Amino acid sequence: MMFADWLDRIRWNEDGLVPVVTQETGSGRVLTVAWANREALLRSEQTGEAHYWSRSRRKLWRKGEESGHVQKLRSIRSDCDQDAVLFEVEQLGGIACHTGRHSCFFLELRDGRWVETDPVLKDPQSIYKK
Amino acid sequence: MMFADWLDRIRWNEDGLVPVVTQETGSGRVLTVAWANREALLRSEQTGEAHYWSRSRRKLWRKGEESGHVQKLRSIRSDCDQDAVLFEVEQLGGIACHTGRHSCFFLELRDGRWVETDPVLKDPQSIYKK
Repeated sequence: MMFADWLDRIRWNEDGLVPVVTQETGSGRVLTVAWANREALLRSEQTGEAHYWSRSRRKLWRKGEESGHVQKLRSIRSDCDQDAVLFEVEQLGGIACHTGRHSCFFLELRDGRWVETDPVLKDPQSIYKK
Repeated sequence: MMFADWLDRIRWNEDGLVPVVTQETGSGRVLTVAWANREALLRSEQTGEAHYWSRSRRKLWRKGEESGHVQKLRSIRSDCDQDAVLFEVEQLGGIACHTGRHSCFFLELRDGRWVETDPVLKDPQSIYKK
């Protein structure tokens, strides 16, 4: 595979995946934690748009392919052990979560309970209406 | 186990772990991606200091127990699927990485190569000198 040298440096897990943290440029908000295989990382780098591996659907997943909420990549980082990846993105539509919220991390632990802290910006039924 | 209700909401993986993204308050910098088991999350919540599960050493790991680079917790968040956790922390000493860097994510992909973008702030040998 061409351009694969940098992919060989990643320490893939037993399923051939690596966790990807996606952070919004500007706000610094952590939007999602997802997973990528080799193809997802390669396509992300080649297209400039975030691609992941959907573990539930078992397929390559171009973020926003249904919703239009594409993530434009600003940078791809990795950590000291190279067993995690960090995407810095511009989040089109300002919505990363399938619930219609800005970030998937909308639950905060308060006094031993998970509390929803972020509003739904758009009804999911209107996001995925087709 | 007391106070465990919120822990039951987490979707632990087959090893009883959940990935934890740790982000620095103020700078918004993503410092580390690590893993937690039930005990690590519970102790984090109870002590206000980040605890993880070290997969390599197979033991509970209070961040900074050797280096002094303790992480003071500001918040604990979880995502829509509750299969990931986000810690917001104050990073004591300003160093999260065992290499002596601020963040573990000091490698950036540029033109198909991983490039070190962050300086070593402190010699690791002086951090772990005992």
